[in-house]
Amino acid sequence: VTDLAHVGEFGFIDAIEKLTRSAGSRGVSVGIGDDAAVVACSPTTLLTTDTQRQGVHFELDWLSARQIGRRVFRVAVSDVSAMGGKPRYLLLSVGAPARTDAGWARRVIGGLVADARGCGTALVGGNMSADDKISLVVTVIGDGPRRPLLRSGAKAGDAIWVTGPLGGAAAGIELLRRRIRQNQFIAYYRTPPLRLSVAGALGNSGFVSSMIDVSDGLVQDLGHVCEASDVSARLDLDAVPMPPALLRAARSRSARPSRAESFSDKKHHGRDARSLLTHDALSYALAGGDDYELVFTTPLRVTERDVRSLCARHDCAVTRIGVIVERGVAAVTDANGRPLERAGYAHFGAP
Amino acid sequence: VTDLAHVGEFGFIDAIEKLTRSAGSRGVSVGIGDDAAVVACSPTTLLTTDTQRQGVHFELDWLSARQIGRRVFRVAVSDVSAMGGKPRYLLLSVGAPARTDAGWARRVIGGLVADARGCGTALVGGNMSADDKISLVVTVIGDGPRRPLLRSGAKAGDAIWVTGPLGGAAAGIELLRRRIRQNQFIAYYRTPPLRLSVAGALGNSGFVSSMIDVSDGLVQDLGHVCEASDVSARLDLDAVPMPPALLRAARSRSARPSRAESFSDKKHHGRDARSLLTHDALSYALAGGDDYELVFTTPLRVTERDVRSLCARHDCAVTRIGVIVERGVAAVTDANGRPLERAGYAHFGAP
Repeated sequence: VTDLAHVGEFGFIDAIEKLTRSAGSRGVSVGIGDDAAVVACSPTTLLTTDTQRQGVHFELDWLSARQIGRRVFRVAVSDVSAMGGKPRYLLLSVGAPARTDAGWARRVIGGLVADARGCGTALVGGNMSADDKISLVVTVIGDGPRRPLLRSGAKAGDAIWVTGPLGGAAAGIELLRRRIRQNQFIAYYRTPPLRLSVAGALGNSGFVSSMIDVSDGLVQDLGHVCEASDVSARLDLDAVPMPPALLRAARSRSARPSRAESFSDKKHHGRDARSLLTHDALSYALAGGDDYELVFTTPLRVTERDVRSLCARHDCAVTRIGVIVERGVAAVTDANGRPLERAGYAHFGAP
Repeated sequence: VTDLAHVGEFGFIDAIEKLTRSAGSRGVSVGIGDDAAVVACSPTTLLTTDTQRQGVHFELDWLSARQIGRRVFRVAVSDVSAMGGKPRYLLLSVGAPARTDAGWARRVIGGLVADARGCGTALVGGNMSADDKISLVVTVIGDGPRRPLLRSGAKAGDAIWVTGPLGGAAAGIELLRRRIRQNQFIAYYRTPPLRLSVAGALGNSGFVSSMIDVSDGLVQDLGHVCEASDVSARLDLDAVPMPPALLRAARSRSARPSRAESFSDKKHHGRDARSLLTHDALSYALAGGDDYELVFTTPLRVTERDVRSLCARHDCAVTRIGVIVERGVAAVTDANGRPLERAGYAHFGAP
């Protein structure tokens, strides 16, 4: 095993430069290897950054090296999707212990580069630094639509929509934290959806009054839209889309609500994971987070059919889950106006 | 003391948003607070990122909060200067323990925002994440000149120039590591020079064939230019500019070469720091790094007078330190062709 200390910072950067050489590089005049990258950008450029740190956002045995790289790309790029834009360039800051296997580290970056290439996005620079854990900071430079989709445009009467099902990733993380490595929810966590195609179409459609991605949990993120737009959101909880397995797990849980606490990891390793979940399905969907689906609002003039056919053209499931109302007692409520808690349980709460 | 856990991620981000509100925001359509920033960029955009981590790049008692913020900005922006460009936007990724004093953290970011504002640069986004140490990753988005100054343009016969004196910061770091807090070199470390004005002028002058900033040490960084340009560099070591105090320290050291090892920190705290340095002045200047001065090459058609008067117009000291020659046995040599070591001592060496 050759570690990073042996390869050295400059040696490792050379290897990364080789990885990126064959990648899509439209707009890139100078990529990895000079003081800064030189790229062509537009008058509506999108900028966002995201950190994934070992021990905080993931553990090394939760994901393969390539999955770590792919996931960090998809999580970061989700913020560009949420503006209705397209990612074009990436910068990557890597923190790693000197004893890190250099081949493993190359596979992490290989996973990122391959997934990014599939989206026409090029890794153009970054830096390396000693750290006691693996730390990946990805900055995404994107192209926005002429009018990027902000959090602040929702108006009373607007319909609320969400792509894909919610809650699967949070259920997967809960089981991973309890050392259950094989479970039916883990794929939602490992491979966040790429919503670039539908996001770009929504960005150019003129249909959308506000948009955000679901990273911290539906209630939390929709709450940000409500605050920025000075409105409230009323959700039809029966409509919130969830993976069928999560719904089955919820039924199973309600039959024996107090068993979860007594489960030991070893005893249940390999068993059907659904009976190990400690919360009802809706808690994962409303407060779990890590879904990286899109929540957006559409004004009255846009028909349901408009929205459904646009999303269908991009092979993206979409569900109407509520309506924007005048600002009320809480940012996000159920259909009866009862406030929904932002975090279903402390595990997912603010620090 | 209110810590970050108490203020919360969103509360802290709100505070940062307020800090940036009055800042220069030319080109910024959407700043902190949405999924991504929306900014106007050019067809020659520069992208670079840099990490400063507690325990690796600095210790908390080496710098005040505001100095930490200012230094991380200047170090990151140096790579944009090295291309002959101007910084326009910043993204900041903050890692911090939950118990971090929120006021201290705000002052760090306040130091960064204030220094950036002085350069017409706006903090437009970022993220926060739990960490066991303070970690700051700054991404700079800049405007390049029409033809950015690369590492790859040096040709045999070109003159080699450097701005400012070299070696002061490395001497300062050595003394800081040995717990000597007051010394005449520390300012070079704490407050790297801003070379934006002269860098922009050099970028537009047509005088410069290649440029890099001195971050890892003159021999190391000039070595990168040589590799990218497939040439060698021959330095006139007598010409390398150094702070007068460092030269005096070198004379002092040569008078009593074996004393350094027996110095205890307490005994010498407050004494003249120069006698505590363990290396000769030239080692700090050639191999120390952290200078953030510019090294550049000019073709024969550009006169010394051209270069000197351009730099004088931007109040920037400049020194001719050597000549580019055909590729030889080593990237960087002295005037007699003897190879110069890239790192003078392991302390500054590769990991």
